[in-house]
Amino acid sequence: MKIFKNEIDLKFIKQQIAEQIGVTIDVTSTDRSFTNVSDLREANERSICFYESERYIDDFRASNAGLILVPKVIDCKPKENQVLLTVDKPYFLFMWLVSRWLELDNQASEKSISPLASIHPSAKIGQNVNIAPYVVIEEGVEIGDNTCIGSHTVILTGSKIGHSCKVYPNVVIYHDCKIGDKAIIHSGAVIGADGFGFLPLNGVQIKVPQVGNVVIEDDVEIGANTCIDRSTIGTTLIKTNAKIDNLVQIGHNSRVDEHSVLCSQVGLAGSTHIGKSVYLAGQVGVAGHLKIDDDTLVGAQSGVPASLPTGKYFGSPAISAFEQKKIVGSLKDLPSVVRFVKKMMKEEA
Amino acid sequence: MKIFKNEIDLKFIKQQIAEQIGVTIDVTSTDRSFTNVSDLREANERSICFYESERYIDDFRASNAGLILVPKVIDCKPKENQVLLTVDKPYFLFMWLVSRWLELDNQASEKSISPLASIHPSAKIGQNVNIAPYVVIEEGVEIGDNTCIGSHTVILTGSKIGHSCKVYPNVVIYHDCKIGDKAIIHSGAVIGADGFGFLPLNGVQIKVPQVGNVVIEDDVEIGANTCIDRSTIGTTLIKTNAKIDNLVQIGHNSRVDEHSVLCSQVGLAGSTHIGKSVYLAGQVGVAGHLKIDDDTLVGAQSGVPASLPTGKYFGSPAISAFEQKKIVGSLKDLPSVVRFVKKMMKEEA
Amino acid sequence: MKIFKNEIDLKFIKQQIAEQIGVTIDVTSTDRSFTNVSDLREANERSICFYESERYIDDFRASNAGLILVPKVIDCKPKENQVLLTVDKPYFLFMWLVSRWLELDNQASEKSISPLASIHPSAKIGQNVNIAPYVVIEEGVEIGDNTCIGSHTVILTGSKIGHSCKVYPNVVIYHDCKIGDKAIIHSGAVIGADGFGFLPLNGVQIKVPQVGNVVIEDDVEIGANTCIDRSTIGTTLIKTNAKIDNLVQIGHNSRVDEHSVLCSQVGLAGSTHIGKSVYLAGQVGVAGHLKIDDDTLVGAQSGVPASLPTGKYFGSPAISAFEQKKIVGSLKDLPSVVRFVKKMMKEEA
Repeated sequence: MKIFKNEIDLKFIKQQIAEQIGVTIDVTSTDRSFTNVSDLREANERSICFYESERYIDDFRASNAGLILVPKVIDCKPKENQVLLTVDKPYFLFMWLVSRWLELDNQASEKSISPLASIHPSAKIGQNVNIAPYVVIEEGVEIGDNTCIGSHTVILTGSKIGHSCKVYPNVVIYHDCKIGDKAIIHSGAVIGADGFGFLPLNGVQIKVPQVGNVVIEDDVEIGANTCIDRSTIGTTLIKTNAKIDNLVQIGHNSRVDEHSVLCSQVGLAGSTHIGKSVYLAGQVGVAGHLKIDDDTLVGAQSGVPASLPTGKYFGSPAISAFEQKKIVGSLKDLPSVVRFVKKMMKEEA
Repeated sequence: MKIFKNEIDLKFIKQQIAEQIGVTIDVTSTDRSFTNVSDLREANERSICFYESERYIDDFRASNAGLILVPKVIDCKPKENQVLLTVDKPYFLFMWLVSRWLELDNQASEKSISPLASIHPSAKIGQNVNIAPYVVIEEGVEIGDNTCIGSHTVILTGSKIGHSCKVYPNVVIYHDCKIGDKAIIHSGAVIGADGFGFLPLNGVQIKVPQVGNVVIEDDVEIGANTCIDRSTIGTTLIKTNAKIDNLVQIGHNSRVDEHSVLCSQVGLAGSTHIGKSVYLAGQVGVAGHLKIDDDTLVGAQSGVPASLPTGKYFGSPAISAFEQKKIVGSLKDLPSVVRFVKKMMKEEA
Repeated sequence: MKIFKNEIDLKFIKQQIAEQIGVTIDVTSTDRSFTNVSDLREANERSICFYESERYIDDFRASNAGLILVPKVIDCKPKENQVLLTVDKPYFLFMWLVSRWLELDNQASEKSISPLASIHPSAKIGQNVNIAPYVVIEEGVEIGDNTCIGSHTVILTGSKIGHSCKVYPNVVIYHDCKIGDKAIIHSGAVIGADGFGFLPLNGVQIKVPQVGNVVIEDDVEIGANTCIDRSTIGTTLIKTNAKIDNLVQIGHNSRVDEHSVLCSQVGLAGSTHIGKSVYLAGQVGVAGHLKIDDDTLVGAQSGVPASLPTGKYFGSPAISAFEQKKIVGSLKDLPSVVRFVKKMMKEEA
């Protein structure tokens, strides 16, 4: 159960939901207010919940929630003192409401610049910025309005962060990088560490200097302990609204286009170009110097050795998911088939 | 070689070992004391070592260790001034002894709350707690007795940590999470970052707010740079005595039951339920919304796409280890079999 | 585009390049100086670039770069005011020059010990060391000359770091570890956390104490968020000039020999021995208690279950890359072959 700092009432809820979509509201009581969201089972009279899948019909029936967002097709009456809000997409609207509620709480929280932070006098800090204790902000850094920087986060020389960003504690942003507006960066993420490049000379690995940077556009989310390396020369680029999970590796000079989703533990080698609205499932590895076209889906643990036109892929090496499924289905017969054919081959020889 | 702060003597050793199991002690000298543990080769007269596998018989014979724990079946005499302790399980008892010795050293080390830490006045800090420099403890946090918090660790609003925990430097525990007693959390671990959830709306990824938390029960160990995400609603749960290695990803709303072991770089997608005493080897990936039953073993790099009843599994997608082994064994013949059969198919056509 | 603090002129460039290899310099203007390096397209008259592959011939022809390193075989005249330096290996020499230029800039940067760092009085700090704010240096630590320690980095009791190292922010080095000279350690790396060892006793996982350490020799680079665990007893060893990328896991008691390259997200289980000049591509997993011989290449995502003699390997489980390639090539025919043979088997039965 998530208990919020601010109570909200049905009027607020109606306003927020109406902003997103027109709704029919079946209100048996109009003077109700709510303090929390929870799942149906642990809900109380001050909880807001949603009910969408019939799989949870028993939980729905037993729930003590004060307000439940329900789908249009439901055939169920509210309990006494329970409000059912009938909407098209209960889960979506519930989450929309929670987001607005969190914003309400966040607006109420005070912002300040901790005297325990170390901020270079040349840094430009916007209005209404929160800087937590032990943050380090080096020379020439710029931070936009309404951005929050969590404790221990380090922003090295010359990097710029846009407005309304949320940077959690213990993030490191190396020098000369750029983060757009409304970005969320989780703890332990490392933005702009050196790309991994060496030239062997008489058997010794000689470091290739990495003098490029990382640019992250607006509305990007970056997961905990994810690494996005700076390019050798030029820019490693994460475009608007891309979403990157925890423990992902993005090699130098790579590019991830708009709205793409990279799940946890994905790895992109260097100079990899991921198109728009691509979905890479968990633990996928993508080789370097290739392009994955827009709207492509790659299944979990797949290994992508070459460029992929738009489609669905799976396997290591990744091929068409349709073909791969047939191969995987055939494998169970492989031992008996091999035994049978080897016998034939022997007889023939 | 590990040199301890405190010396221990044979009497202490006998006491500690007797606590664990009855032993026969063959003592040629009773007034000995020891300062270190090491492997057999680098040992000196003040070292304690163990010898268990015949593979190391030469090291054993050449060793200058002052005390060696040896198995019952050994046919070997101690050197002059060398003590051989005959026990059932030398490795196990050696490690037991080392643990007790480390505790002895730790008891002797002073605990204090660094004036360089930033602790909210509302936080409740137990007795005999160590808080290192630059720790950040936010509003409403609770820390149990005898717990050590390493430098730079950040504990956000409302989180609770039990007694006798060891939290290493640079850990981040997000808000509203709960850690039980005797937990060990290694550096860089991130507990409670947002689960990875988005709903596409007209091609744009809309963030699903993550308002649940993480609960970690007693005696859990969490490796370096491991990420355990908070649930969307409700709790991501790690139960008593589960052991999680480095760089592991545990997705939102997942659950890991008692005594399970997750090796390095394992990834669990969302709403994954790992039963009791399950063993997931390194780099295993487990899809979401499924259950792995108690006592199951999954081999390294396997990919688990669906629920697994108790058993041994291997491969990506993971199937019965027994079947997978046969398939892997057949693959080497695949190229010749395919060539032979394709020729037949051509002749028949 | 990377803009340097110091300008350099052709004389400096000639000196630096001559140090590495004799060159022919075709100079149309001798009094030029440069401020930046960039790729050919965004270059200006004060940029230094390289041109090596014909793939970029259009960029080369259109470039406004002031100086371009070109290969001997080029058939192209410089633009007015453009200098072309004809050399054997333009990319290599360009990178050599950039490295020297970075060194020039770094020499110019002031070094100091931040009053915001927490340094134990017993620590031995060398000459010309830079220690950033909020660094924690515990009892008995030693830091060699000219080493830079980034903010928030924590070095626990008794660890030693050599000279001319660069340790980025937020690194944790546990107690009793040793780092050689000229090492580079990126943010979030954790050196010396406990190895992952448990002994089950009546179903409960009992921790095996980890009382060894980590030794990293000279000229090693360690990527962001990489974990190198301390050994149970003895040493986890990374030898001279080994290069380790981001998010790599090196289990306890492992050893990586000289000049080996471990790409991102590689995992080594415990007691794994990687020979000299081995190349492990991204996401490779290597089981414990085995040896990979010198000069071996292992392809991306491979799983190594047993020791490998020198060669090229691929797949999970990894076999000879030559054999694996044949198997992968045969798999596309597997479904039709299985269908055909199963029909035959049925007819025969």
